Amino acid sequence: MAVYTQLSAEDLAELISHYDVGELVSAKGIAEGVSNSNWLLETTGKDGGGARYILTMYEFRIELTDLPFFLGLLDLLAEKGCPVPATIHDRSGATHRMIPDPADPDGPQKAVALIEFLPGVSIDRPEPAQAHAVGAALAGIHLAAQDYSERSNAMGLAAWQELIDECGQEGLATIDPALPDIVYDALSGFAGDWPGGLPQGVCHADLFPDNVLMLGEKVSGLIDFYFACTDFFAYDLAVTHAAWCFADHGRKFRPEISQALLAGYESVRKLTPAEHAALPVLARGAAMRFVATRAYDWLNTPADALVTKKDPMDFVRRMQFYEAEGKAIFAS
Amino acid sequence: MAVYTQLSAEDLAELISHYDVGELVSAKGIAEGVSNSNWLLETTGKDGGGARYILTMYEFRIELTDLPFFLGLLDLLAEKGCPVPATIHDRSGATHRMIPDPADPDGPQKAVALIEFLPGVSIDRPEPAQAHAVGAALAGIHLAAQDYSERSNAMGLAAWQELIDECGQEGLATIDPALPDIVYDALSGFAGDWPGGLPQGVCHADLFPDNVLMLGEKVSGLIDFYFACTDFFAYDLAVTHAAWCFADHGRKFRPEISQALLAGYESVRKLTPAEHAALPVLARGAAMRFVATRAYDWLNTPADALVTKKDPMDFVRRMQFYEAEGKAIFAS
Repeated sequence: MAVYTQLSAEDLAELISHYDVGELVSAKGIAEGVSNSNWLLETTGKDGGGARYILTMYEFRIELTDLPFFLGLLDLLAEKGCPVPATIHDRSGATHRMIPDPADPDGPQKAVALIEFLPGVSIDRPEPAQAHAVGAALAGIHLAAQDYSERSNAMGLAAWQELIDECGQEGLATIDPALPDIVYDALSGFAGDWPGGLPQGVCHADLFPDNVLMLGEKVSGLIDFYFACTDFFAYDLAVTHAAWCFADHGRKFRPEISQALLAGYESVRKLTPAEHAALPVLARGAAMRFVATRAYDWLNTPADALVTKKDPMDFVRRMQFYEAEGKAIFAS
Repeated sequence: MAVYTQLSAEDLAELISHYDVGELVSAKGIAEGVSNSNWLLETTGKDGGGARYILTMYEFRIELTDLPFFLGLLDLLAEKGCPVPATIHDRSGATHRMIPDPADPDGPQKAVALIEFLPGVSIDRPEPAQAHAVGAALAGIHLAAQDYSERSNAMGLAAWQELIDECGQEGLATIDPALPDIVYDALSGFAGDWPGGLPQGVCHADLFPDNVLMLGEKVSGLIDFYFACTDFFAYDLAVTHAAWCFADHGRKFRPEISQALLAGYESVRKLTPAEHAALPVLARGAAMRFVATRAYDWLNTPADALVTKKDPMDFVRRMQFYEAEGKAIFAS
């Protein structure tokens, strides 16, 4: 959660001179994003009336070849009326530009994109009405992006297995002595249980509360689509469920939030019986996905990195909860 | 340059409910400040027309008892028309509030202040007209705060000596083998050379380019008054000179910026002959102040701290430049 690259006012002014957004008025590096740097920019605007934008510089983890998928998706969803920020295109029509890193001007250039600023705040402890709105917004993007292009899920089942294997039994045990058995048991279970043939399309795949902006009970923005991919819609709902319906680091399930989220989703897009039946295993999988990435990051993030490490055990608790209670809570 | 404390939207909404600023619309942690955390807040505003503020949480280094001096100074200067952000008072009239740290709710509370947001960007490589405006703005605060209360300079001569002594010869030598001799020679020189009896009053004492917001050639904001103190006005000008008139990490003096800065200052407040004569030694002292704090921080900042270490040698070069050329460049 940091700004990894220093861009001066002069660098920023040069950059925005390629866009039809007016002159730079203010620029603040913002503490958002783990794999990218972000600035909140204010300009005089296209028509002099003032405008705000988020400038994102892609620092790690993102393949440049994926950028057109992510940024084009924002454009499509914004056009269809979903609460997502549109991409601002430069005067040549490009969704992103390459600029030098001032600290290493002869090194590789970095990709940047200018994105619409949306109001709203991220909620830590949602109310049921807010969870309902989030479920509805998620279903909204599932329907709106149905004809969009495909991108396979780089964080699917096979990736969990790989990440866990890279952690190794010994590494996992340094996080928690019980962790190796828990994850290997869980992973072997998915092989037989994982469903096939469910409705699929573009998923956000990472719709945590900090990726949702709200104004009161209304969703004003869904952001950070950099894990977006083609997968089962119900899996995306399961990820969102795991991300929203627990308190106290996964120790406390919040049934009223769960009900509201599911009802909100189904108020826009009805789940099929097969999707309903698959939710318990999909939710276990969703929890496993974050156990795997968090365990990997826990063991591989240098102590001096500018990010806060997240405890994989928060999602082990969710996975165990879904194992025990999934059938009951997802019974329609 | 990070946000050290996580405040949720709920925490922020609770906090601003004590101010007459409307409802929270947006909140972004911003990557500014080394000893405090900052958020850019947008609210519906007093009259519903929208308003923006900087929320500052004081994390380290600042004595709570100094806050009234710093925040009252902003109010005075803003009232007198200087381009500084006014402090927003809460409904009881207080300039700051104490709030719990959500990560340690039973621990000590932290002080926060809500401050006016000002437009403008910080310039990396100033033009002469910009340096002229900065000089004039600095003189403006010197005149405007003449009757304000006093605060002794905690970063004066005695402090440099203490910081350097804490670094120790061996520590300094790990930064650069020549550093111990350079700083001890310099420090012993100040004892006899430091002037007395110059005009004094409230100084910013840290007016680096990142503490100045500009819109084109105009100064739109002087910010970060947390080193403000009573000292010689000419010393404050010398600090500003050392901060603005060099490029390439202190290797390249920019005479046109120096001339513009001094002329800008004198366009608002004429220097006395004694101040003129003292500028060379004050500039050496100003450079020494940043050698001392940077050397101390270099040796005492943990590797995993969320701050970028700054090279003390950048200011050793300035100090040596002032030693050799100070008389010539400050000759009126």
